Amino acid sequence: MVKENAEYSRKKSSLDKVSKYIPAVRWLRSYTKEDAISDCIAGITLGLTMIPQSIAYAALAGLTPQDGLNSAFVGCFIYSFFGTIKEVVIGPTSLMALLTYEYTHHLSSDFVILLCFLCGVVELIMGALNLGFLVELISAPVVSGFTTATSLIIVVSQMKSLLGLKFSSEGILDNIIKLCQNVKKVRTGDTLLGLTCIICLLLLRKLKDVNIPDKFPYRSVIKKTLWFISTGRNALIVVLSALVAFYYKEKGGAVPFYTTRTADTSIPSIRLPPMSTTFNNRTYTFPEMVSSLGTGYLVIPIISVLANVAIAKAFVNGAVEASHEMVTLSLCNMAGSLVQSMPTTGAFTRSAVASASGVRTPLAGLYAAALTFMALGFLGSYFHYIPKATLAAVLIAAVIFLVDWEIVKQLWKKSWLDLFTVGCTLIACITLGVELGLLLGVVVGLINLVYRWARPEILVENQKSYSGNVVMVTPMTGFYFPAVDFVSSAVQKAGLTKGRGKATVYVDCSRFSGTDYTVAKGINSLVAAFEKRGQKLQFINVPANCYALWTGTGCKEVYFKRTEDSTNIFDDSGKALQILEEDNDKEPEQKSLLSKEDCQV
Amino acid sequence: MVKENAEYSRKKSSLDKVSKYIPAVRWLRSYTKEDAISDCIAGITLGLTMIPQSIAYAALAGLTPQDGLNSAFVGCFIYSFFGTIKEVVIGPTSLMALLTYEYTHHLSSDFVILLCFLCGVVELIMGALNLGFLVELISAPVVSGFTTATSLIIVVSQMKSLLGLKFSSEGILDNIIKLCQNVKKVRTGDTLLGLTCIICLLLLRKLKDVNIPDKFPYRSVIKKTLWFISTGRNALIVVLSALVAFYYKEKGGAVPFYTTRTADTSIPSIRLPPMSTTFNNRTYTFPEMVSSLGTGYLVIPIISVLANVAIAKAFVNGAVEASHEMVTLSLCNMAGSLVQSMPTTGAFTRSAVASASGVRTPLAGLYAAALTFMALGFLGSYFHYIPKATLAAVLIAAVIFLVDWEIVKQLWKKSWLDLFTVGCTLIACITLGVELGLLLGVVVGLINLVYRWARPEILVENQKSYSGNVVMVTPMTGFYFPAVDFVSSAVQKAGLTKGRGKATVYVDCSRFSGTDYTVAKGINSLVAAFEKRGQKLQFINVPANCYALWTGTGCKEVYFKRTEDSTNIFDDSGKALQILEEDNDKEPEQKSLLSKEDCQV
Repeated sequence: MVKENAEYSRKKSSLDKVSKYIPAVRWLRSYTKEDAISDCIAGITLGLTMIPQSIAYAALAGLTPQDGLNSAFVGCFIYSFFGTIKEVVIGPTSLMALLTYEYTHHLSSDFVILLCFLCGVVELIMGALNLGFLVELISAPVVSGFTTATSLIIVVSQMKSLLGLKFSSEGILDNIIKLCQNVKKVRTGDTLLGLTCIICLLLLRKLKDVNIPDKFPYRSVIKKTLWFISTGRNALIVVLSALVAFYYKEKGGAVPFYTTRTADTSIPSIRLPPMSTTFNNRTYTFPEMVSSLGTGYLVIPIISVLANVAIAKAFVNGAVEASHEMVTLSLCNMAGSLVQSMPTTGAFTRSAVASASGVRTPLAGLYAAALTFMALGFLGSYFHYIPKATLAAVLIAAVIFLVDWEIVKQLWKKSWLDLFTVGCTLIACITLGVELGLLLGVVVGLINLVYRWARPEILVENQKSYSGNVVMVTPMTGFYFPAVDFVSSAVQKAGLTKGRGKATVYVDCSRFSGTDYTVAKGINSLVAAFEKRGQKLQFINVPANCYALWTGTGCKEVYFKRTEDSTNIFDDSGKALQILEEDNDKEPEQKSLLSKEDCQV
Repeated sequence: MVKENAEYSRKKSSLDKVSKYIPAVRWLRSYTKEDAISDCIAGITLGLTMIPQSIAYAALAGLTPQDGLNSAFVGCFIYSFFGTIKEVVIGPTSLMALLTYEYTHHLSSDFVILLCFLCGVVELIMGALNLGFLVELISAPVVSGFTTATSLIIVVSQMKSLLGLKFSSEGILDNIIKLCQNVKKVRTGDTLLGLTCIICLLLLRKLKDVNIPDKFPYRSVIKKTLWFISTGRNALIVVLSALVAFYYKEKGGAVPFYTTRTADTSIPSIRLPPMSTTFNNRTYTFPEMVSSLGTGYLVIPIISVLANVAIAKAFVNGAVEASHEMVTLSLCNMAGSLVQSMPTTGAFTRSAVASASGVRTPLAGLYAAALTFMALGFLGSYFHYIPKATLAAVLIAAVIFLVDWEIVKQLWKKSWLDLFTVGCTLIACITLGVELGLLLGVVVGLINLVYRWARPEILVENQKSYSGNVVMVTPMTGFYFPAVDFVSSAVQKAGLTKGRGKATVYVDCSRFSGTDYTVAKGINSLVAAFEKRGQKLQFINVPANCYALWTGTGCKEVYFKRTEDSTNIFDDSGKALQILEEDNDKEPEQKSLLSKEDCQV
């Protein structure tokens, strides 16, 4: 049995070694026909969404459509082999576009490419340093707030295309205001098409759950067809709408709705990122280029990693291999810089579309990448038939199911703090931007964690030994620097009130998992105060690491009894302890520990 | 006895109420003649240091000498009544000067006065919100690194005046480079005077410790005189040097060393801070003025509070009443804005001088304030006799004793983390500036605290009950969101390896002090994984608050046994547990808890 286990784990570990670096190996070993069909449908849908989106986001960053498509296909391609999360789709996103614009709007496109490369390098360093654990700081309420906020932002931002309006806006609030201002300019054609698409998408979504009586003829064929139509609904709707546009154009009449912008594009050439450039009649060396980018090459990777992991966490139930994701993202960006890409990260909208299209493995990205690549080469001329309102409908129908109402119901009256975190993140994401919203959510969580160390619960008990009354003070968690004043005051108060300035005070350190130098200094002050008063103070059950640090940094040994010495501490006088009165009955375990002492005599 | 205590505490509390707000009441009740003499000496020394310093710092902020002196005397005056720490001296500092310059160099002095007022308002809000606890995040190693760095920076920055050099520099490194470049321009007069002053100061410092034989005539008078000279050494040296300068000037010859710049000043008039102003032919309303100041009115108060408390912690052994300090600082700034002050905070150099001059209570500030006030009115013309080299010598001799070598010796091999914090803070303070250094030190401390929650120690034991083997997993600290993946993996691994995928796994939650929603979701995933495998999983000793949150947010009740239910948990089969093998013998208490269960049958 043990041998079998060893054999199994050896086999497993050699497979693990390969699939650890190229997770595609893992999928491919058990890749079925259904998986392939699902991935193909999802991939094509993704491609159809990705191409117009990439062009739009490139424009947002002040770049050309060619730049946008270049950025899109490389990320998709690399991620399908090295990625771990099937829903994640790497490419240009609105967040990256805005940040890139912020750091490079006064510079040339060479700087954007270098920025993309540097982002990759920084992400690689983050991955190599195993900084992946940092993303564990993104708690479930933060993910929920972020997801809901992003979904709402996307819905609002797509309303414009859905209603056939044209204006530029900054942020969700400005968008809503401008929607209201332009309400009279709403175009019937776009609105009708968009709403029809949304209704069709929502109905088709339910199609695969339709119950067919057992005895119905060709039941299994019908069931498969329904599933196929339901899963491929996004691609289907896009193609059908494009056909409608094609029909109108062939007829020679005006198309009653806006279609996607076309652009002259070509297969990108592969070349190293620029290490020097000439811009505005000035030659920039590599260090000058880097310094022109300001803090961009630090801020963008951090935010892209945060966003990527937040998206991953929104779709995955369980652990995200964050360090691996960082390295993969780094590869996408470094490879991207070879084909003149802008910085990329996981795209929330496209992840939602992939999820809604029944994606099975990251390999779906391969189809999307291929489609984008073909668009660059020769498909470009066909894409201008895709109506804008249809794409808006696809995005809206994919993200509305990500708005997380459930969490509010679950947390109501159960955990106000978690609910507060959801609210903070949600509101900050909407009003200040998703990057600041994410950050605020993380900070709220961290403040709470630090607070737990700073204000430990403290149990104070009067106890009676035959030699007199003693006071037992038990802090319920570890003892680190933010708690120094708090615990010191509690011990002082216990000594003065419960111990009336006379009774020996015992501080039970059994729950301390560690300590630091500030605590040692605090204990020294505390000991001095008790000495001055002539009251006895004793720390018992001191763990070995605390004992070493405290006595090593100037505290007198006589005040501390290690765990192993503490069992005999009350036997010095040959007498035992009896619980006299209690302040706090929250922790029966502690009391049983004490009564155990009691029993020993 | 109890009644006496109550009487005592009632009396004490009524006194506390007054002295809580005006701590001067506390000092004055037991103010002795020696205190008065010490404070007077320290106060005059302070005044003599403060006047030229304030003029210099005002220049650094782009303001006039009048502004600098205005800023100095109000802070000193207010703090002597409301302050709690005898060494702290409020006034313009190099840090405040640099920050003020950063935010207002493109604006008029009206903006500086408004900034000072707004800083006071923000500090008041911080104090009122009881944000004082935030300063508990400044650990002893951070204070040590900050103190040492500031001392070194001051020594280097004063070398210029000590050697009679004149150049402007940015930061300590630039200062050192420029010192080296200008080494040939060193003036003999200044250097000789400066070094003589330092040697005299160091010798005089030791004077009060001179041992006089018991039978020596007039022993007590001599001892008192020596103490007086030793304590008043800073003032003495300044006055003597000024007399030397006076002698040279009266003789009509050139003074062989630089003396302090003189300035036309007058008693300031009291008026409300400007709520609108005209600058560069444009009228600014109050909101426009505020928005011109950028984030200054938030950043400056936060940094001034941090710096003030870090200085306080460097001189005080024990707790600093941080919220009270915030309110006091706020009063200093709000009152300061009435007499056209720039933003002020505790000054490290002057605190060092006060400490070196044997200050006894904050009332020393009163003498310094009076001297500064007189300087504004009519003493101004005398101050230009004070040699710059002498002032540099006074500052250097005061701060060199604050360089904290001791902490390195104490922490070596005892706590690398604390030592790392000292090093980080020190290096960052010197290279990036003290405000960023302080911040970095705090952040390093916080990362460590969060890490303790994220990576709890976990005890895994195989145990035998008569119904079969079970696995006992005990995380040693609480369970919050950053630990979800880590603890889940540990429980999974325990179930698969120790439990061979079959034995029941018990997770002992007795050490959990709290939990959150992310944990509940993590437990759900964990339970699902065990269910899928058909292995039994049970959380025992679950505290009431964890039980409520977990079962309230979707976890099935059957998996949890509360603390009160857990004592009977192994009795279901009428059998008991026996420790089979142990992985970890670090925590005997846990084992004794288990053997207690064992005993119950």
